[in-house]
Amino acid sequence: MIKTAIIGASGYTGAELARILSRHPQVELTAATSRQYAGTALADIFPSLGKAVTIICDNPGIDELCQRAELFFTAVPHKTAMDLVPQLLAAGRKVIDLSADFRLRDVAVYEQWYEPHSSPQLLAKAVYGLPELARERIRGCDLVANPGCYPTSIILALAPLLEAGAIDPLSIIADSKSGTSGAGRAAQTGSLFCEVHDGFRPYKVGRTHRHTPEIEQELSKLSGMAVQVTFTPHLLPISRGILSTIYATLKPGFDSQTINELYRKRYAEEPFIRVLGDRTLPATQYVRGSNFCDIAFKVDTATGRVIVMSAIDNIVKGASGQAVQNMNIMFGFPETAGLSTVPLFP
Amino acid sequence: MIKTAIIGASGYTGAELARILSRHPQVELTAATSRQYAGTALADIFPSLGKAVTIICDNPGIDELCQRAELFFTAVPHKTAMDLVPQLLAAGRKVIDLSADFRLRDVAVYEQWYEPHSSPQLLAKAVYGLPELARERIRGCDLVANPGCYPTSIILALAPLLEAGAIDPLSIIADSKSGTSGAGRAAQTGSLFCEVHDGFRPYKVGRTHRHTPEIEQELSKLSGMAVQVTFTPHLLPISRGILSTIYATLKPGFDSQTINELYRKRYAEEPFIRVLGDRTLPATQYVRGSNFCDIAFKVDTATGRVIVMSAIDNIVKGASGQAVQNMNIMFGFPETAGLSTVPLFP
Amino acid sequence: MIKTAIIGASGYTGAELARILSRHPQVELTAATSRQYAGTALADIFPSLGKAVTIICDNPGIDELCQRAELFFTAVPHKTAMDLVPQLLAAGRKVIDLSADFRLRDVAVYEQWYEPHSSPQLLAKAVYGLPELARERIRGCDLVANPGCYPTSIILALAPLLEAGAIDPLSIIADSKSGTSGAGRAAQTGSLFCEVHDGFRPYKVGRTHRHTPEIEQELSKLSGMAVQVTFTPHLLPISRGILSTIYATLKPGFDSQTINELYRKRYAEEPFIRVLGDRTLPATQYVRGSNFCDIAFKVDTATGRVIVMSAIDNIVKGASGQAVQNMNIMFGFPETAGLSTVPLFP
Amino acid sequence: MIKTAIIGASGYTGAELARILSRHPQVELTAATSRQYAGTALADIFPSLGKAVTIICDNPGIDELCQRAELFFTAVPHKTAMDLVPQLLAAGRKVIDLSADFRLRDVAVYEQWYEPHSSPQLLAKAVYGLPELARERIRGCDLVANPGCYPTSIILALAPLLEAGAIDPLSIIADSKSGTSGAGRAAQTGSLFCEVHDGFRPYKVGRTHRHTPEIEQELSKLSGMAVQVTFTPHLLPISRGILSTIYATLKPGFDSQTINELYRKRYAEEPFIRVLGDRTLPATQYVRGSNFCDIAFKVDTATGRVIVMSAIDNIVKGASGQAVQNMNIMFGFPETAGLSTVPLFP
Repeated sequence: MIKTAIIGASGYTGAELARILSRHPQVELTAATSRQYAGTALADIFPSLGKAVTIICDNPGIDELCQRAELFFTAVPHKTAMDLVPQLLAAGRKVIDLSADFRLRDVAVYEQWYEPHSSPQLLAKAVYGLPELARERIRGCDLVANPGCYPTSIILALAPLLEAGAIDPLSIIADSKSGTSGAGRAAQTGSLFCEVHDGFRPYKVGRTHRHTPEIEQELSKLSGMAVQVTFTPHLLPISRGILSTIYATLKPGFDSQTINELYRKRYAEEPFIRVLGDRTLPATQYVRGSNFCDIAFKVDTATGRVIVMSAIDNIVKGASGQAVQNMNIMFGFPETAGLSTVPLFP
Repeated sequence: MIKTAIIGASGYTGAELARILSRHPQVELTAATSRQYAGTALADIFPSLGKAVTIICDNPGIDELCQRAELFFTAVPHKTAMDLVPQLLAAGRKVIDLSADFRLRDVAVYEQWYEPHSSPQLLAKAVYGLPELARERIRGCDLVANPGCYPTSIILALAPLLEAGAIDPLSIIADSKSGTSGAGRAAQTGSLFCEVHDGFRPYKVGRTHRHTPEIEQELSKLSGMAVQVTFTPHLLPISRGILSTIYATLKPGFDSQTINELYRKRYAEEPFIRVLGDRTLPATQYVRGSNFCDIAFKVDTATGRVIVMSAIDNIVKGASGQAVQNMNIMFGFPETAGLSTVPLFP
Repeated sequence: MIKTAIIGASGYTGAELARILSRHPQVELTAATSRQYAGTALADIFPSLGKAVTIICDNPGIDELCQRAELFFTAVPHKTAMDLVPQLLAAGRKVIDLSADFRLRDVAVYEQWYEPHSSPQLLAKAVYGLPELARERIRGCDLVANPGCYPTSIILALAPLLEAGAIDPLSIIADSKSGTSGAGRAAQTGSLFCEVHDGFRPYKVGRTHRHTPEIEQELSKLSGMAVQVTFTPHLLPISRGILSTIYATLKPGFDSQTINELYRKRYAEEPFIRVLGDRTLPATQYVRGSNFCDIAFKVDTATGRVIVMSAIDNIVKGASGQAVQNMNIMFGFPETAGLSTVPLFP
Repeated sequence: MIKTAIIGASGYTGAELARILSRHPQVELTAATSRQYAGTALADIFPSLGKAVTIICDNPGIDELCQRAELFFTAVPHKTAMDLVPQLLAAGRKVIDLSADFRLRDVAVYEQWYEPHSSPQLLAKAVYGLPELARERIRGCDLVANPGCYPTSIILALAPLLEAGAIDPLSIIADSKSGTSGAGRAAQTGSLFCEVHDGFRPYKVGRTHRHTPEIEQELSKLSGMAVQVTFTPHLLPISRGILSTIYATLKPGFDSQTINELYRKRYAEEPFIRVLGDRTLPATQYVRGSNFCDIAFKVDTATGRVIVMSAIDNIVKGASGQAVQNMNIMFGFPETAGLSTVPLFP
C-alpha cells in the first residue's frame, strides 16, 4: 500500500483519479486538496463517489502534504504545477503531473506557447509519460509529465507508422474531436449545456491549440526529423471521448497488409491498445470509462493516403487512467491494477 | 469458480451481464447464446468488450447447455423464458430469469397482462429477487425472478414507508423516467436516435404498462393490503438510468425527521442503497454504470405529502447487476463481488 | 410597423425574441440592450442570427430608450424589472415583462418568495398574460406580466378541468420536466454540459420552486378556491421543452368522454393549443421551436385519477413566443403573426 | 399558386419538405405519397406537423399523380427514383429528385457505385442543383438532381478556391461529420439511440462512401482537372447538421487576405451563404433548421495549408431546403420564399 495524494481534486480529472484509485488494491488516498471545497467530502461534490470515496477535501501546506503521501498526482492548471512540483520533488516525493508544465523538452517552445517557466531545469528530468513509448524510462523516474489527451490519441495512432518510416511525416493532418469534459469543470459560457448540446464545432483552428507543440515534439522524436502537423480540434456533444482521424501520405512499399502487420506487432503485448480488425472502426462509446485506446486504419489507394483512427476516453487514457498506469509502472504494480474497467456501452 | 451461461447474449442486458461477469473473480462464462449471432464473438457484436470478453456466441441444445453451466441467466423475452426455464430446472440447474415470466405470483394476473402461462406451477417456487427485501429466500432458491427496472426503483423507494405504515397505500403515484436502453436493442422506429434525442415523452399512460401489476404485487405485500398505483413511464434521451418521483400522502405522526430515521435504519447495512442527505437529490448520472440505488425524500407539509425520489442504472441495478447480486447471494459469494464499479461521472 | 425594444437581449430569452421579431411583418426592432455586450452586434453574440438580425447591442438611458420604441420586452432578472418597468410606463410606453416581478397579485406572496417589492401599486394594473385565459384583458392593457414557463404548461393543461369543476383542486400534483435553457445563459457549474448531459434529476422539490405561488394563484382563480399544489421540477438533458405530467382526482360524473369534450370545446378556437387524440401523447420534440402547447389526457379508472400531459417549448410558448403573442393581441395584429414556425422535428 | 407533390413523404426528408412547403406562400401541396402510411394524415405520422399540414398520405397511380401536381419532389431511395422520374417527365411534369439517381453525369461511374441505370439518357438532361453554382441552368430545366448533403457542404466550401486556382486540387482531404437524420428513418440497429448517443465514430472510410463520386465530379468541374479526394464521413450524436473540415495545400501567391476576398466576392449576393469573420467559426447549432451554409477558413502558414470549415443543416440546405430553393428558381419565385427560417439556437 502506497500513500497517494491528489492535488486539485475538485475538477473532473481529480474526481476521476479518486474514482480509479478507490478500486486500486495497492493504493491509499491520503489527501485530496481543493481551495474552494476545503472541508467538504469529495463525495459531496461528486455524489457519484458516495460509498466509494470517503476522503474530505482540505488544503494543507506543502510540509504536511509531503508527510501524508509519497506519490502526488498534480491535477492543477499549468503554471500552478510549475511552482508546486519542484517543492514535492525536493522533499523526495514522486510526482505525476497532469498539467502541461513538464511535457515540452524545449523551454523556448514552452514559453512561446504558454508563459515563462520557473523550473526549466526539471524539463530534462521529466519523462513524457506515454507508457507504450517510454515504459522503461517511466519505471525509474521521479517526475512523469502525463501526456495531453489529444496528443495521446494522435501519438499512439502514428507511432508504428513513424517508427517504420511508413508515412511522410510532413504530410500529417490530425482532425480530432473531443468530448466536453476536456474543457474542465470551470463555469464558462462556452461549456454550458445549451451551447454544446445537439451541435458540433471546430475551435482553435490553424496551429493555435496548445497541444500542437506537444504533438510535434513526440512525432518528431519518432520520425527523426522536425515535424509540423496540421491539427484541428473540435468539440463533441458528449462528455467523454476523443476520436482522432489522421491523414498521411504512404511511402512506397507500404500497403494495407504491411501496415496491418506493423500495428499488430508493435502493440501485441500492450494491455490497453486494441488494434481493430478490418470490419470494425473505433468509436468513442466503445472505450467509455476505460483505459483502452482503440486503433484502426484504412488505406486509400487512389490517393496514396492512409487514414488512421484512434479513440480514447479523454479523462481515462487521456488523463487520469494514464496517470494511474504510469504510477503502476513507477511502483512495480501490475500495469492494469485499478484499470480493469470494461467500457460502458451503451 | 462456478460455470455460468447467458441465454440471449446479444441484447443490452446480455452484454451487460458479460461485462460484469468478466470482472467477477468467482465466475467463468461458458456459454453466451444467440440465434442471430451464432459463431460471432460477443466482442465483435459489442466492440466495447474487446480484450475483456472472449466468448463466442453459439446456440446449443438444452442438453449441451446443461452440461456447460450450473447457473443460467435467461435474458430472453417473456414467453421464451417460460418455455426454457422449466427444462433448466429439471436438469438441476439454477436460473436467474430476467424476463417477466416468473415475477407475478397470481397466474391470472400474469395472463391478464401477458398471455397464457405454460408453467404456472413454477410461480410459487420462484423468488422475486429484490435482495433488500428477500435476501434469505433468495439464498436458498433455484429460480430467481429478477425484478423489472421500474419496479426496482419504485419498490426500494417505498419499502421503508410501507413497512412502517407511514403513508396511505392508496395515494401512491409513481412518475418514472427511463433511459432508452430499457427499450432494448431491437430495431424499431420509436427507438431511433432522431426520435428520442433532444426530446422527452410519456408512454403507456394510465395503468397500461406491464410493470404495473409487478409494482402493485410487491407494494401490496409490503403494505398488507391491495394497492393500486398510478404509474406513468416516460422516455428520457439518455442511455442508462431510471429516476422515479413518487408521491404519497403521509399518515399522521410522520414528519421529515421520523421518515429520515426510517430510511437510515432500514438501509443501514445495504451495500447498494445510498440514502442521500438533505442537500443532495438523486440524479441518474450519479449511479451510471453502478449497482447503486440512490434515494432521497422531501416532505411537503402544506399538502401533507411526501415526495420520494430514487435513481438506478436500469441495466445494472434494474437488470444485470441485480441479477449478479442475486447470484452472489445464491452461491454465498460476497454480495458486492463483481459489482464494485464506481459510477461514471461525467 | 411598431417600434420595439428588447431590454436584456443577450440571454436566451432575448435572443429568441430577436429571432421571432426578425420575421414579424409589423414590427421593427430599434433597441437591444446589454451591459456586457454594448457595442457588439447581437448576431456576433448569437451567430445563428446572422443575416436575419442586424441590430447592435447598446445600453442607452431610459429617456433615449423611450424615444426609440413604444413597446418594450423586458427580459431581465426579477428585481431589475421591478425598477425599470415603472419608468417605461410613466413615459407612456407599453411593457411586456418576462420576469416574475408583476405576475403575483398579492404583494405579500411576492415578498415571501422573492424580496421587497418597490412597485406594489403596479401589481393590480398588470395583466397575467396567458392569452387563452385573459385575451380581452390583455388587449387593453399597458403592462403584461408574461407567465413563467412551468406555470404556462400547467395552467393550460388544467384550465378546462378546473373551469368545469371536473377535478378536486386539492388533489393536484404536477410533475414537470424542463430543458436546460430554462436555467438561462449564466455561466454556472450546474448548467455545464457535463453536469446535465446523459442525466436527469429533480430540483427544488417540495414546494420550494418560485413558480409555485404563480401556479397556485392562477389555479385558485380558475377553481374558485385556495389551491395548494405539489409541484416538482426536473432538469432534462435537452435544450428546449417542458413536459408536465399532472395528476388529479376526478369528481363524480366525469369520464374520458366528457373530459375529451371539455378540452375540445374549450380550445376549439385557439391557434396555439393542439388537443391530441387518443393515440398520440405529447412530446417536447413535437413542439420544438414553435408556440404550440400540446395537451393530452388519460383517465385511470382504477384509481379515479386523470393524468393530463402538456408540452411546450419553454422559450417560445413558455417565454418569448407568448410575449409576441401578447404583443399581437395588444396591438391588434393577427395573433399568429411572427409565430407561424412549424416545430422542427427531428 | 403551383401544385406540388411529395413522393415518399414519410421519411425525414419528406416531412421536412412538408414543413417548409406549409409556409410557402406560392405553393399548394396536393399529394404526399407513402405505401406504408396510405390513409394516414401526415400529421399523425409526424405530430410536429399538426395544425400546419393537413394532407393525408395516399399512394395513387402515376396518371392521377400527374393530374394532381405540376412539380414533384421525389424523396425516394435511389433506383426507385430512376424508374419513376422518366414517367413524370414524359407527362410534362417538372421534377426535383432528392435521390442520387441523376446526380452523376457519367453512367459508368453511377453503375460502378450504385447499380445498372435504367434511364441513362436523362443524365445529360438533369441539372445538378446547387443554386450557387448553377442558378441559370436550374432556371430553365425540368429535372433537378438535388445534391447530396455531404457534397453540398464540401462543394460550397471549396468552389471559390478552385475557381480561383488557389489550392492544389489533388491535396483535398474532407473530414465530414453528420447528424443522424442523414441515415433516414428506417429502423436499423446502427441508428438506434443507444448506439449513437454520447458517442462518435467514422464510417465508410477510405473512398467507400457513395457521395465520393458526386464530390469528385463537381470538384473536377470546378478545377478543370480530374480530382480525387479523401473523404471521411463520421456520425455525430445530433439530429441535424453537417460540419465539414477540409484541408488543401495553398498555391503560391495566396494568403489569408486574398482568400478572404475570394470568399467575400464569390458569395456577396448569395442569400444563404454566410461567410464568417475571423473570430467566428461555423457550428452546426448555428444553422439548425435553416437553409444557411456557414463558411470560414484559416490559413496554417507553417504547413502551407488552408483549412476550410462549412456547416449546413443536412435536411434543409443538404436536402429539402435546397430542393425548395431550386423550385423557387425554376418557377421564378423569390429565392428565399418559404426559406426564411432563422436558425433555432439553442
